[in-house]
Amino acid sequence: MNDLFLRACHRKPVERTPVWMMRQAGRYLPEYRAVRSKVDFLTLCKTPELAAEVTAQPVNRLDVDAAIAFSDILLLPEAMGMELVVDESKGGPRFPKPLRSAKDIEGLRTPDPEAELGFVMETIRRARKELADRVPVIGFSGSPWTLAAYMFQGNGTKDFRTARQLVYDAPHDVHLLLEKLRHSVTDYLNAQIDAGAHAVQLFDSWGGLLSKDKFKEFSLQYSESVISGLRRNGTPVIVFSRGCGHSLRELAATGADVIGLDWTTDIGEARHLLGNAVALQGNLDPHALYAHPSRIREEVNCILAKFGRGTGHVFNLGHGMLPDVPVEHAKAVVDAVREESVKYH
Amino acid sequence: MNDLFLRACHRKPVERTPVWMMRQAGRYLPEYRAVRSKVDFLTLCKTPELAAEVTAQPVNRLDVDAAIAFSDILLLPEAMGMELVVDESKGGPRFPKPLRSAKDIEGLRTPDPEAELGFVMETIRRARKELADRVPVIGFSGSPWTLAAYMFQGNGTKDFRTARQLVYDAPHDVHLLLEKLRHSVTDYLNAQIDAGAHAVQLFDSWGGLLSKDKFKEFSLQYSESVISGLRRNGTPVIVFSRGCGHSLRELAATGADVIGLDWTTDIGEARHLLGNAVALQGNLDPHALYAHPSRIREEVNCILAKFGRGTGHVFNLGHGMLPDVPVEHAKAVVDAVREESVKYH
Repeated sequence: MNDLFLRACHRKPVERTPVWMMRQAGRYLPEYRAVRSKVDFLTLCKTPELAAEVTAQPVNRLDVDAAIAFSDILLLPEAMGMELVVDESKGGPRFPKPLRSAKDIEGLRTPDPEAELGFVMETIRRARKELADRVPVIGFSGSPWTLAAYMFQGNGTKDFRTARQLVYDAPHDVHLLLEKLRHSVTDYLNAQIDAGAHAVQLFDSWGGLLSKDKFKEFSLQYSESVISGLRRNGTPVIVFSRGCGHSLRELAATGADVIGLDWTTDIGEARHLLGNAVALQGNLDPHALYAHPSRIREEVNCILAKFGRGTGHVFNLGHGMLPDVPVEHAKAVVDAVREESVKYH
Repeated sequence: MNDLFLRACHRKPVERTPVWMMRQAGRYLPEYRAVRSKVDFLTLCKTPELAAEVTAQPVNRLDVDAAIAFSDILLLPEAMGMELVVDESKGGPRFPKPLRSAKDIEGLRTPDPEAELGFVMETIRRARKELADRVPVIGFSGSPWTLAAYMFQGNGTKDFRTARQLVYDAPHDVHLLLEKLRHSVTDYLNAQIDAGAHAVQLFDSWGGLLSKDKFKEFSLQYSESVISGLRRNGTPVIVFSRGCGHSLRELAATGADVIGLDWTTDIGEARHLLGNAVALQGNLDPHALYAHPSRIREEVNCILAKFGRGTGHVFNLGHGMLPDVPVEHAKAVVDAVREESVKYH
């Protein structure tokens, strides 16, 4: 297996910097759209054969150094008891009945992942087979806070005003939910590791909505608790908190092996601040992929140079791939990293 | 005149911390809604008698220590030649024909502010009269980058994908526009100072969309240029860049007297980093205003304590007031700052 990604996560020597891209299996790929033209989004997520196929697509097309199991973070809250629907015209999955009271929260279950989210584990098993272990397969979950934000809001379109209001107005309810999520997320990631995920990533996409103090109280401590509850046995853990450049030291102290940086953090400054305590993942602005491949290469070079010599860098975007990026531009990122990074190792 | 605000901007001794709130004249106020029930948004902005009345409302209702001239940042691009419309159902003012080419950009004018935006200067003059100089009146403009983001996008609803794409794909066009905006914004703020604004604020609401490097190249250098072109004569300049906690030192070096902090930056850490180089404005999370007044007081206390003893703090929100906040909760912020801040001076 090409284990560059795993070695970089563990800060072991590599010949070049490994690269994968968040949301690399998605709408910008014609072969993904071909699958989606036949099944709706949730059916795709819940059909391991198809989800594994889609997981492998970017490896085949772009030659990335890791695959990420195709799934959606909102499937866990669904398994906890929330109705999840997809209305394509309204932009992705949503909860038509968001949580509104402590009673709603108390009614949520802690699911048995193999029984209730078995399709995710099966996707991981099949993706490994489909890829013939050419590259590692990454499992993932939303962080407790990020899942809570969706569960209180119902969807991702309203600036999460309800969740942010409750942090101040009903903090006990928010903690009640986060406590439940802490257990569910831990079990879920452990099941993914048991199913064969070579690494797991915790997506705290909405940690940056909070003030630094509230981030610590409502997001970071729960991520930390999840990480400490993982049966890792060498499986690297990545934590990606968007908009949380203010708390890099705190993120490094969670026990994660890799800190995912969004595009607003200077990766050179982050490395300087954190030293060799953790590996760093990131952090090309997804909008850079709209530019000409020659310009994309310049931007890739800039990030490689900022990180500098040595291992501990997993090249990635600073956020998910945008759906209307040309495939050749995504390939340009991978090619540039493969070619330009050799000189740093 | 109550000059606490101006003294704090200049880091001169004050008896207590002054307070005003971004978007303090707005929909959360019943008296504002009463005015708006009679005229549409742009008519309100362009009718100095009404705009001055609305400017004074939060001073009368909340007892804040400064007023901000009621206006909209998109009126400047309109004066530069862009059609501006308000479609209430589509969320605020927008440009139906966003900039699409270098030719579009070259067609923009550098307006004579007194001739083409005279209603703004007249609003400032009338607001001073209406307030009988009880408190200072703040003038403002969008920063070149923030205005450019709207001018390329047309509206504020799409994550500014076009503007962010152009930064990578057509940087020369973006600089061409920013160069024009630099002149227009400078002239506009100078005219506001000439009309009697006691302070001016540059709103870089969308600087945080950019990577740190691109922020320097496309936002910061133009803000700095605007600031250096102001005929200040003691008029304090505030620069508010949302999501730019990564560049506090650079913002302090722009020549601004006051750095406005959004709610994600720890104001204590910012003061520690910047020392006494500049005053700081901020930075209560606007969502805190949904909470019970007793909890609001706790949050106010927390920020006052983080800033600590001494002058150089203008209390404010970390972003604009939300439209559905109860008025009494806005008042609770002001009361808490007035009462709790005495002990720090």
